[in-house]
Amino acid sequence: MAEASSPVDTEFESEFDHGIAVSRSDGSPASYDAELSAGWQIGGGINGGLLLALMGNALRSSLGDAHSDPWSITAYYVSASQPGPARLTTEVLRSGRTTSTCSCTLLQPDAEGEVERVRALATYGSLAALPDDVRTTAAPPQMPPPDECVSTADAPPSFLAQAGLLERLDLRLDPACVGWAVGEPSGRGRVQGWLRMADGREPDPLLLLLAVDALPPVTFDLGLFGWTPTLELTAHVRAVPAPGWLRVKASTRNVAGGMLEEDAEVWDSADRLVAQSRQLALVPRSL
Amino acid sequence: MAEASSPVDTEFESEFDHGIAVSRSDGSPASYDAELSAGWQIGGGINGGLLLALMGNALRSSLGDAHSDPWSITAYYVSASQPGPARLTTEVLRSGRTTSTCSCTLLQPDAEGEVERVRALATYGSLAALPDDVRTTAAPPQMPPPDECVSTADAPPSFLAQAGLLERLDLRLDPACVGWAVGEPSGRGRVQGWLRMADGREPDPLLLLLAVDALPPVTFDLGLFGWTPTLELTAHVRAVPAPGWLRVKASTRNVAGGMLEEDAEVWDSADRLVAQSRQLALVPRSL
Repeated sequence: MAEASSPVDTEFESEFDHGIAVSRSDGSPASYDAELSAGWQIGGGINGGLLLALMGNALRSSLGDAHSDPWSITAYYVSASQPGPARLTTEVLRSGRTTSTCSCTLLQPDAEGEVERVRALATYGSLAALPDDVRTTAAPPQMPPPDECVSTADAPPSFLAQAGLLERLDLRLDPACVGWAVGEPSGRGRVQGWLRMADGREPDPLLLLLAVDALPPVTFDLGLFGWTPTLELTAHVRAVPAPGWLRVKASTRNVAGGMLEEDAEVWDSADRLVAQSRQLALVPRSL
Repeated sequence: MAEASSPVDTEFESEFDHGIAVSRSDGSPASYDAELSAGWQIGGGINGGLLLALMGNALRSSLGDAHSDPWSITAYYVSASQPGPARLTTEVLRSGRTTSTCSCTLLQPDAEGEVERVRALATYGSLAALPDDVRTTAAPPQMPPPDECVSTADAPPSFLAQAGLLERLDLRLDPACVGWAVGEPSGRGRVQGWLRMADGREPDPLLLLLAVDALPPVTFDLGLFGWTPTLELTAHVRAVPAPGWLRVKASTRNVAGGMLEEDAEVWDSADRLVAQSRQLALVPRSL
């Protein structure tokens, strides 16, 4: 299923790499500057997966080459991020032989100084150094090929105007999970589709942090529309993804008390389960 | 299914409440002292669920009554906790109308001063204030009644000697998931059973943090024995549990690269899914 692909062109800066770029602040070994672009907005703020990847990139920069991959990263979203400048601070809690545990804080300026947007914790290591045993009992999601799926590029212009994120993605949703777009949600609480970057940027561990939060909310498939703010999101990156299309499946089983969990799986073109995530989010107020 | 139960006797201090007790350190509004008891050991350290509940209790103490319940709490286990004194520091990142987001650090003294054991992030609010909508599509685990399950009190004395935790629990495992105890693991990667505290302490949101990590590792059901150190554990507490037995189901779908995810569900006696958790752990070296 993998498509032919050439190695990453180091001259080419993709939209994703631009979106997660950090530069070391003068005079501090654990402080980075970044710019949150409106091009990654969705609904009321910057996409939570892009913020996760941005923090993941700052942590990777602070940890160096030995522990360069996020194995697990958790974000608590404290307030809604807005387009504009941001500052990230990092802290290494412990650095061992095979892993480092670390923390990252994302701040934005406000009238009173700085306001915290996201706090993250993470464990980093080398995915390439892991043993190659695979005893996965989960199966990849079954869906029609990308050409027979529904491209989000075909969404109404009024919808796309609020969703800069979607312009950066080539997202093809399984037709069985998009009944909500024509007023017929399935009620199963599942959304799945094919995902790649519109500009051809191949997947790597940081891109998987975007992928776990790139689909429309599973609440759409339950007929619940509106913003679904994430309180907490944890992603486990389990392997370096092969080049080509990713398949992402998101589902929920427990919508209750005004909250829901949303589980996502990301499979690569070699049929490997490369990332798993769970988030706790608020049900849209329309409930 | 709920058993008759009387209100919590405030004179009676249960083993669990003793295990998670914290006292405010002199002179600091965000520092607590605690004692980690060998009675909560399992394998090479203090049970990760007990540590989560201990940190949850320190955070609750620091937040006050308005936001007294953990909705989501995440722990990154930095080094193995040992019996003896511990210190917890807390930080409130943001306190809003309905939720507070906060951080907790668990430290123990060592030869060089203090060493970090666990770092946690959490969102707290009032579970009682949540709307009462329930659209859960998940179903409770099916298993025989407690009297027809396998009590861990019947485990070999040599095993119980290393597992002080089990003396504090009344844990009845589904016979279909304990083939590993007689050399016949099912290979499905699932363990489930009934759980209550041996001394009759009724469940509440903090006890659910213990419950999500109280079962034997699901790796046993795959024939993989040995310690399964947790890197990261996130628990979502979704409702105040009814009194009586809890049912806990733990499963894994992706054992690969020397790691596995372990998902747990906790159901109360009123058939409500009261907590969900996921952890990332290391596969025992015997693999």
